[in-house]
Amino acid sequence: MVPPDQIRQLQALVGPGNLLSAQEDLWCYAFDATDHIQAPAAVVFPGCAAEISQILRLANRHGFPVTPRGAGTGRSGGAVPAPGGVVLVLTRLNRILEISPEDLVAVVEPGVITGRLQAAVEEQGLYYPPDPSSADFCTLGGNVAECAGGAVAVQYGVTRDYVLGLQVVLPTGEIIETGARTMKGVVGYDLTRLITGSEGTLGVITRIILRLTPRPPARQTLAAGFPDLEMAARAVSLILRAGLVPTALEFMDRTTLNCVREMLPFRMTQEIAALLLIAVDGHPHDVEERAGAMERFCREQGAGMAIRARTPAEAEVLWKARRVMSPALRQVKPQKISEDVAVPLSAIPRLVAALQEVSRRRGLPVASYGHAGDGNIHVNVLYDQKIPGEKEAAHQAVEDIFSLVRQMDGTLSGEHGVGLTKAPYLEMELSREAIALQQRLKRAFDPNNIMNPGKIFPPGRGRVTPP
Amino acid sequence: MVPPDQIRQLQALVGPGNLLSAQEDLWCYAFDATDHIQAPAAVVFPGCAAEISQILRLANRHGFPVTPRGAGTGRSGGAVPAPGGVVLVLTRLNRILEISPEDLVAVVEPGVITGRLQAAVEEQGLYYPPDPSSADFCTLGGNVAECAGGAVAVQYGVTRDYVLGLQVVLPTGEIIETGARTMKGVVGYDLTRLITGSEGTLGVITRIILRLTPRPPARQTLAAGFPDLEMAARAVSLILRAGLVPTALEFMDRTTLNCVREMLPFRMTQEIAALLLIAVDGHPHDVEERAGAMERFCREQGAGMAIRARTPAEAEVLWKARRVMSPALRQVKPQKISEDVAVPLSAIPRLVAALQEVSRRRGLPVASYGHAGDGNIHVNVLYDQKIPGEKEAAHQAVEDIFSLVRQMDGTLSGEHGVGLTKAPYLEMELSREAIALQQRLKRAFDPNNIMNPGKIFPPGRGRVTPP
Repeated sequence: MVPPDQIRQLQALVGPGNLLSAQEDLWCYAFDATDHIQAPAAVVFPGCAAEISQILRLANRHGFPVTPRGAGTGRSGGAVPAPGGVVLVLTRLNRILEISPEDLVAVVEPGVITGRLQAAVEEQGLYYPPDPSSADFCTLGGNVAECAGGAVAVQYGVTRDYVLGLQVVLPTGEIIETGARTMKGVVGYDLTRLITGSEGTLGVITRIILRLTPRPPARQTLAAGFPDLEMAARAVSLILRAGLVPTALEFMDRTTLNCVREMLPFRMTQEIAALLLIAVDGHPHDVEERAGAMERFCREQGAGMAIRARTPAEAEVLWKARRVMSPALRQVKPQKISEDVAVPLSAIPRLVAALQEVSRRRGLPVASYGHAGDGNIHVNVLYDQKIPGEKEAAHQAVEDIFSLVRQMDGTLSGEHGVGLTKAPYLEMELSREAIALQQRLKRAFDPNNIMNPGKIFPPGRGRVTPP
Repeated sequence: MVPPDQIRQLQALVGPGNLLSAQEDLWCYAFDATDHIQAPAAVVFPGCAAEISQILRLANRHGFPVTPRGAGTGRSGGAVPAPGGVVLVLTRLNRILEISPEDLVAVVEPGVITGRLQAAVEEQGLYYPPDPSSADFCTLGGNVAECAGGAVAVQYGVTRDYVLGLQVVLPTGEIIETGARTMKGVVGYDLTRLITGSEGTLGVITRIILRLTPRPPARQTLAAGFPDLEMAARAVSLILRAGLVPTALEFMDRTTLNCVREMLPFRMTQEIAALLLIAVDGHPHDVEERAGAMERFCREQGAGMAIRARTPAEAEVLWKARRVMSPALRQVKPQKISEDVAVPLSAIPRLVAALQEVSRRRGLPVASYGHAGDGNIHVNVLYDQKIPGEKEAAHQAVEDIFSLVRQMDGTLSGEHGVGLTKAPYLEMELSREAIALQQRLKRAFDPNNIMNPGKIFPPGRGRVTPP
């Protein structure tokens, strides 16, 4: 716990109205989009990097943990407070400082909602591609801290590929700048990309320089329904190898489809067991041609239906159905464990088949959907904690899935991060030596381990051993 | 110096014929593509990661420095040995272990020549985009260590954007794997991208997993000559903002042009003071349309000539002229200092104008060419060391240029790295706090500072201070 006099010091740092310590307020900052929950000792809303620096210096002096937080939409527990710690909410740092069409960059504060930047750059004929499903709520600071992905990563890459530079308050209070306002840069170690995806454990991001692109002149959206999942997987493989450059290439299985069927703008019969949702960006007639080729591939591989959205509004309905999938799955069972494994492209059909086997073995529905185009699949183990044994079976299913993924040379997380949820499994992917090195890096940033402790590293292995 | 008994131990580790210690052999490994020169104490040619691990353990035990080296084509002195040190040449690790069209990945050893991989993947209808001008000689290990760029980075990005995972021998001898064979991955800190561009100071890369793409179906090459450089710079800006997605967008100034004029496949009159060389990739008629639009932009901005290559052979001649520019400049003066600054896109015209002013002030030719499409300009200060004062004036010109670039929010290096040549200037770009953090990271990898010491960090600041 943070003692009352330290709370008063924090209060003095951030000013009246920018600290919460009443129980009912603390619970509002106790969780993210996982089922983990832990009330903090206090919640502070700093107004600038200098205040954050002072808060972190105080934390070092007194040894209390600090967890940075954007909108709390993360899926791995990264923003769940450390026991007895302080939550640092960055929503007051919410200015778009600059959008430069000349330099093709935007400079933003971490609390800017992703969708707000997307809209602002679009007004100027520009495009910020990273597009997590939570874009309407999540913040850019959180996107950078977790290296968020999204559906269009197939063509455009993930958040990491758009971060040119950062301002960061180090855990020991120094304010540094990394990277540059240039498209290329290789001066010194790549701190920008080391901090991107470091899940709030290496510092607090206070300013972000993002690369923009010109807005693609046209986009087409195509939906194709298949009588089984394997056929859909084969179509994915053909599309990728043909060099047709899909912008997004999403799939969803029958369980997922059932949850959003009513929302779709066209009739989706029960025979359809797998849906592909494809976007193609480019110049209008080029898009037309590539979308046509993809449609043919889908039909040749057995798609019973393949429909192109006729209007942007119709396309938007399709993408909206995609975005609500994660919450919609709660219709099947009240609880779910959402993983976001990624496998090599050729392993997608094998993974999809193996997931069905895990579902049978553990007696629980396993719904999957996601980014077939880059092998990053959102696997959801659905359960009801009120039914005896289901919670345990769900966790066993997750272990089964991680084992499968590792056998396929895959990774435990494509875009959600390790956080709390995958920390116990880190050793399934990284060797003891690689983890020890990462812990030495953590210590080089944060000698007193005050910055979001308990994340990434397996429980009980938080302490650093000398090399 | 490495004492004779340690040389014998090294010899025993790598086996007969894989160690050089005769003076005449040592001088062959004393330099790279800069003018820096330093003979090593010994040159070893290890055959596998396990041997490298043993060599590094020996180096830690006895405290001698080790400098990894690929083909020695680097432009910042990264592969120049540390005084009294051992050069670790990685050319025996030269196998392409796998090319997987299904997974769109290649797995290679660090000594593979970049051009060899490019050709091997092309045979399978695939493409490995990073294309440094030295692709026919340089190695992939060196490309990763320096985060090499090249002409097509405008569309496709740099080496960093294609490295999915690494096997690395840490300076303390542990062999670790980073990243994964998947398109996405966010498990733990991003060691893959921290090591990419770390210039051989954080470990020895022994295996690389690279992302491939399908081979673009068509490419057009366009050359446009302008009566002055400012007009060319305006055309660049228009092309970038119009969303025409150039694959490469190179420029060269008059001095550079004069050195390659005879090589070009068409007549280039003396009125032409700046040339743009543009590539456009995509589906054939889309490429035709975009190349046409770019040609119109160039003519509207004052291009006296704009010609499209009619055959792949003609295009190849143009690109070859581009690749030989760096050595060709020695025609003007025997010595040159080549920098590769990068500036925000809008600053290109200002930089180009300011370079002419530096040339006048310092009384030396300053030739520039390079990647106008991403703001990464190769600036060459040409001098003759036999003419009194020219060498000093050249170094003053470089300082002038770095100051200008920093005033424009640019970076000292877009793709060549810091190495030896820019280490004295590091503090012009990075703050004291950022450098101290990077030194702590270096120590977390390399507590005894045996791995390529003297690179990146300013001379006399190599020792790490505790946080």
